[in-house]
Amino acid sequence: MRELQGAHGDFLSVDYTHPSAVNANAEFYCRRGLPFVMGTTGGDRQQLEATVRSSAIVAVVAPNMAKQIVGFQAMMEYAAQTFPGLFKGYSLAIRESHQKGKADTSGTARAMVRSFNRLGIPFTEDQIAMERDPQTQKTRWGVPEGHLAGHGWHTYTLVSADGTVRFEFTHNVNGREIYALGTLDALLYLHARVAAGDRGRMYTMIDVLKGS
Amino acid sequence: MRELQGAHGDFLSVDYTHPSAVNANAEFYCRRGLPFVMGTTGGDRQQLEATVRSSAIVAVVAPNMAKQIVGFQAMMEYAAQTFPGLFKGYSLAIRESHQKGKADTSGTARAMVRSFNRLGIPFTEDQIAMERDPQTQKTRWGVPEGHLAGHGWHTYTLVSADGTVRFEFTHNVNGREIYALGTLDALLYLHARVAAGDRGRMYTMIDVLKGS
Repeated sequence: MRELQGAHGDFLSVDYTHPSAVNANAEFYCRRGLPFVMGTTGGDRQQLEATVRSSAIVAVVAPNMAKQIVGFQAMMEYAAQTFPGLFKGYSLAIRESHQKGKADTSGTARAMVRSFNRLGIPFTEDQIAMERDPQTQKTRWGVPEGHLAGHGWHTYTLVSADGTVRFEFTHNVNGREIYALGTLDALLYLHARVAAGDRGRMYTMIDVLKGS
Repeated sequence: MRELQGAHGDFLSVDYTHPSAVNANAEFYCRRGLPFVMGTTGGDRQQLEATVRSSAIVAVVAPNMAKQIVGFQAMMEYAAQTFPGLFKGYSLAIRESHQKGKADTSGTARAMVRSFNRLGIPFTEDQIAMERDPQTQKTRWGVPEGHLAGHGWHTYTLVSADGTVRFEFTHNVNGREIYALGTLDALLYLHARVAAGDRGRMYTMIDVLKGS
């Protein structure tokens, strides 16, 4: 590692590894003075933050690097905080489709449930309709053949009690391009923070979005 | 009017009249000490506000009484202010459908264009696709027969440059129930402000939503 630093000068690290490696990796980056962007989920997040805060480096840590989806979640959270009960009396349906291998319900959809609850709608995570069958995804959802193995589609439908008003929000992602672009933005942000002389600070994707 | 006040005590007024009546009506309510909710658009809005502010009454003035739509617009405006350029590189399509009689482009859609511009998308109001043909509304859009004469449907579609990401926001309103409910909420809010002893203040639908 010192050899690498000697040969190439300072560099930024990107961590997409495994939940079990989150904390040990963070300690390694901090000890070696390596600013990092981490998209890996899981591990002990409080400890992760404490590690970075007590270090001499800075990091961007984001379980979701898809900027536009993080922005959309922030919009919903803003509405939930600012206009609690706005959709009281509305019914909600949430459906999501992901590649066959994904066992758990979409984390994005689950986070959204908490916002909808505060907007006045009783709804539990187990009411989220999951789709994992490639045939149904192709014929009924219209997921392109080439993305059956890697996609994340979400639709939230709100209907007023009398049925006269319908809101629908959709975000459909095919492949991983959006995450790659978000990771690049996180790196540019991190680079600017390093250049500004920041130390011991952990940033989120919201900071990257704000560009502050 | 004094007779009415004498016979029924204090009451609140609701104004859905005509742009040409906006300022004269407001002056009348203010002079007579009649708190009011005004859904009428047009007129001299600055003068309207000045009239209320220099009076002894309070008023809720909202060109759009549909609470949930006002809330959605506020969400988009929040995103535009907080995350400028979030959708840079995305293409945008806006389509709206209203009853045959409506000549101008949807004001809601036009307001949304300004938010999308700040989110990084060049788009002008004349690019909004308007639909006013009942036959097309019925067959292609799926507007229910009974609401062809009175509806406001809007869809905003964002697609990333490489086509892998698609966001879509829809709000479809049939009939006027949502406006009636919003007007009732505005009246409840106004009543609370009167009871609290407020004077010379003009509120918007955002104040009603916040319930502050």
